[in-house]
Amino acid sequence: MKLSASELAVLLGGKVEGDDTVWVDRPARIEDATPGSLSFLANPKYEEFVYDCDASILLVSHAFSPSRPVNPTLIRVDDVYGAMAFLAEKFEVQNLPEKGVAANAVIDPTASIGEEVTISDFVVIGPNCKIEAGVVIHPFVFIGPNCEIGKNSTLYSGVKVHFDTKIGAQVSIHSNTVIGSDGFGYVKTDGAFKKIKQLGNVVIEDDVEIGANVVIDRASLGSTVIRKGAKLDNLIQIAHNVEIGEHTAMAAQSGVAGSSKIGKDVLVGGQVGIVGHIHIKDGTQIQAQSGVTNNSKENARLYGSPALDYSKYLRSYAVFRNLPELNNQLNQLQERMQAIEKEISQLLANS
Amino acid sequence: MKLSASELAVLLGGKVEGDDTVWVDRPARIEDATPGSLSFLANPKYEEFVYDCDASILLVSHAFSPSRPVNPTLIRVDDVYGAMAFLAEKFEVQNLPEKGVAANAVIDPTASIGEEVTISDFVVIGPNCKIEAGVVIHPFVFIGPNCEIGKNSTLYSGVKVHFDTKIGAQVSIHSNTVIGSDGFGYVKTDGAFKKIKQLGNVVIEDDVEIGANVVIDRASLGSTVIRKGAKLDNLIQIAHNVEIGEHTAMAAQSGVAGSSKIGKDVLVGGQVGIVGHIHIKDGTQIQAQSGVTNNSKENARLYGSPALDYSKYLRSYAVFRNLPELNNQLNQLQERMQAIEKEISQLLANS
Amino acid sequence: MKLSASELAVLLGGKVEGDDTVWVDRPARIEDATPGSLSFLANPKYEEFVYDCDASILLVSHAFSPSRPVNPTLIRVDDVYGAMAFLAEKFEVQNLPEKGVAANAVIDPTASIGEEVTISDFVVIGPNCKIEAGVVIHPFVFIGPNCEIGKNSTLYSGVKVHFDTKIGAQVSIHSNTVIGSDGFGYVKTDGAFKKIKQLGNVVIEDDVEIGANVVIDRASLGSTVIRKGAKLDNLIQIAHNVEIGEHTAMAAQSGVAGSSKIGKDVLVGGQVGIVGHIHIKDGTQIQAQSGVTNNSKENARLYGSPALDYSKYLRSYAVFRNLPELNNQLNQLQERMQAIEKEISQLLANS
Repeated sequence: MKLSASELAVLLGGKVEGDDTVWVDRPARIEDATPGSLSFLANPKYEEFVYDCDASILLVSHAFSPSRPVNPTLIRVDDVYGAMAFLAEKFEVQNLPEKGVAANAVIDPTASIGEEVTISDFVVIGPNCKIEAGVVIHPFVFIGPNCEIGKNSTLYSGVKVHFDTKIGAQVSIHSNTVIGSDGFGYVKTDGAFKKIKQLGNVVIEDDVEIGANVVIDRASLGSTVIRKGAKLDNLIQIAHNVEIGEHTAMAAQSGVAGSSKIGKDVLVGGQVGIVGHIHIKDGTQIQAQSGVTNNSKENARLYGSPALDYSKYLRSYAVFRNLPELNNQLNQLQERMQAIEKEISQLLANS
Repeated sequence: MKLSASELAVLLGGKVEGDDTVWVDRPARIEDATPGSLSFLANPKYEEFVYDCDASILLVSHAFSPSRPVNPTLIRVDDVYGAMAFLAEKFEVQNLPEKGVAANAVIDPTASIGEEVTISDFVVIGPNCKIEAGVVIHPFVFIGPNCEIGKNSTLYSGVKVHFDTKIGAQVSIHSNTVIGSDGFGYVKTDGAFKKIKQLGNVVIEDDVEIGANVVIDRASLGSTVIRKGAKLDNLIQIAHNVEIGEHTAMAAQSGVAGSSKIGKDVLVGGQVGIVGHIHIKDGTQIQAQSGVTNNSKENARLYGSPALDYSKYLRSYAVFRNLPELNNQLNQLQERMQAIEKEISQLLANS
Repeated sequence: MKLSASELAVLLGGKVEGDDTVWVDRPARIEDATPGSLSFLANPKYEEFVYDCDASILLVSHAFSPSRPVNPTLIRVDDVYGAMAFLAEKFEVQNLPEKGVAANAVIDPTASIGEEVTISDFVVIGPNCKIEAGVVIHPFVFIGPNCEIGKNSTLYSGVKVHFDTKIGAQVSIHSNTVIGSDGFGYVKTDGAFKKIKQLGNVVIEDDVEIGANVVIDRASLGSTVIRKGAKLDNLIQIAHNVEIGEHTAMAAQSGVAGSSKIGKDVLVGGQVGIVGHIHIKDGTQIQAQSGVTNNSKENARLYGSPALDYSKYLRSYAVFRNLPELNNQLNQLQERMQAIEKEISQLLANS
């Protein structure tokens, strides 16, 4: 694809500053853009790169005011990230396996396979599965009995989907992620753990994306549920009977313990832990590495382990950094207090 | 399976309250139970659901005293969790691959394969392996040279077991877990890391269960050992030469660094880190997200990073939450002290 | 391999104390060494084992001064770890799959395969890949389109390498690690996340080792880069556009968020989190479980979440442990202050 600045401006509803006849045929980061490429400035941290940038075209916000001359033609847009997201799709090179079913795939005869499906080499699909139209299954995917994969969903190489899992449409699951493994449930009797059989399943609604090496355990009873539009990064742990709300995003290496319910539009930072049996309400934001041990209110902002209100944690941590000094001040006060008490008792004795 | 309340009461040694002729054919969670299902109340947090519950039968403790009328027939038992664990096995639907050895499995001719073994599609078993009777190996499992898998153990799809690993009987290892990868050992010489060859192995004793996407590294020398009955959740890291004691349980995303020894009956919360070369004694309990940097005493309870005694950490954290206020109080005291010192010096001057 | 104490001393440039004719044929840990084995004392924590050690030969430092009689022949060397690392290679038993290409491997006809390559069972190699001489690819490895694997590199079973990845020479990647999965990039518009296509790739330079179940995401634009000689432990998350510097080591379960740059010779402890868009300068050391939120200076030592200077954190934490006592002292001071203020006002009234 090759686009001129004036064509791009039309596509993006933007405004050109500079030569509108230059063209680009690929996107690039502002740090390493070369002539012929399109780049962008969204995060102001990167402004220093603007002035040496060799991109032919640079997307910037209406507010951006360069402090020195700039080489590329600028296109000003309302939402730089949104515009780049839109264009990235145009520049994408598809790297899909060939359509159709690989000869060496092992598909149970009772499985139903939709139209225009891609099933790659070394795939196993169990009995009574329903694979809908347009699904793409990469190599080394295992799908256990009684699973459903909705239209146009993609399972990347090495994904394992265990029995009774229901996956919606336009879902992407990245490599080596495990869906529907047993929940971690035992009772300790006579000094040994006895397993509680995990009889439930996992339900993943439409438009969910799940990263690589994630684990989502099946429910002990009922379902572990990932609601419509939720996005999970890599190496995340979702325990049995958890529910993740619509359009909620979780960053890498976070974990949610059993039976907790995360609401809609929640943002969970990396390496966050959420204990079991609590309810994180809609709109909550949780800072990276926090440990959440209680229900949250709607739109709460949390930080710390155990987590507090975000700004409260920061204020406490500011004093924490200064604790040795505070300790010294306290010791000095005690000495001054002793001196004063002595003086007072003399004064009182003399009075 | 279909069971009446009176039959269940006999099976569980429980006491029926209500219609003892109703029957159930499946278990369900108290929140979404429908007629014909059996549910239970173990965690008092869920009591509110009891009064709207449509289950036909509800297991409760002897102590449970409903505050309002309840629809289901109640069966009172000594141990609600234990009873449900026992019944869950009765209701389990087996989703096993077919017995026998798949035609496309690649098994080295020097491997010994026991009776009644299930080896699924796309499995690789290396030279000199010993697979004992009743073992179930799901698709995409790799077993390297000289490994042993004990009776009735199950390796789920995508498990990788590297050379010289010894696995006991009735062990379950969930999908995409890696056993016997190299430990992380280097010496830095002339500015570059030189690898220390990892020559040891991994030994997993009987009745161990290991979650999905776990990694257990081989020992540099000797063995990394997981003792009888230990239970590891998902995404756990066990470094070289670690020993995990009997009937110890670790929650998801925890990690143990090299050569540390965890005793018996230890409980490790989620996202806990344990440094290398320490000894966590029997019965220790470690709160989620703690970072343990020292040996623990028997039955210690630990919390924090670095970890302290559990209640000590909570007491310190309670003050931490209040640090800005404490800081203000200190500042006010300093001001009052200054005022007083001034007054005293005047009094002294006047006296 | 069988070596006498005198032969070993020559090999290692060491000095024998005791019978120099004894021989060893295997290495062993000091705790469980038996006659005929070679062991070592590097970490002084293990000195107690020296006095009961049944190894035939023990490597020790020149400085080691036994407090009681010792059975094994001692060999004193300059660098005990280095010597063991050197010898471990001598004792290593190779467990390699057979050279050559397995009949069931699926290799795109446009892929170029070098000499002396090992491609095991159930491997998929995509179009336009370049696999150089001496590469070893274990079972269940997926390599997507347009990838390069440099000379003598090893991909262990279950590794997934996605399109456009470039891997250098002498690289090892352990089981079930995922290279080149999509970065976690979205824009939220009209309440739903819209994916930003991830068009970049991953570049891994020579002599890198990567543990098991790691995830390294492709760049959104440009490259995620792991520089020469870097070592990553298991279960690590490397987000899009991150750069890991030369000869840097990261311990297990650490994560680096998008676009951060980690310098050379950095040491990152286990379960560390590093936020996005920061620069960790050369030689920085980060304590386990820290959360780094700001650029570091060269050779910085960091600890805490958010991370502070290492010794500053320890000093603050020492006071934190004592906060309840500090709080009590403050309360007592306030009471003493009140008493004094009362006395002063009486004195003032009387004066």
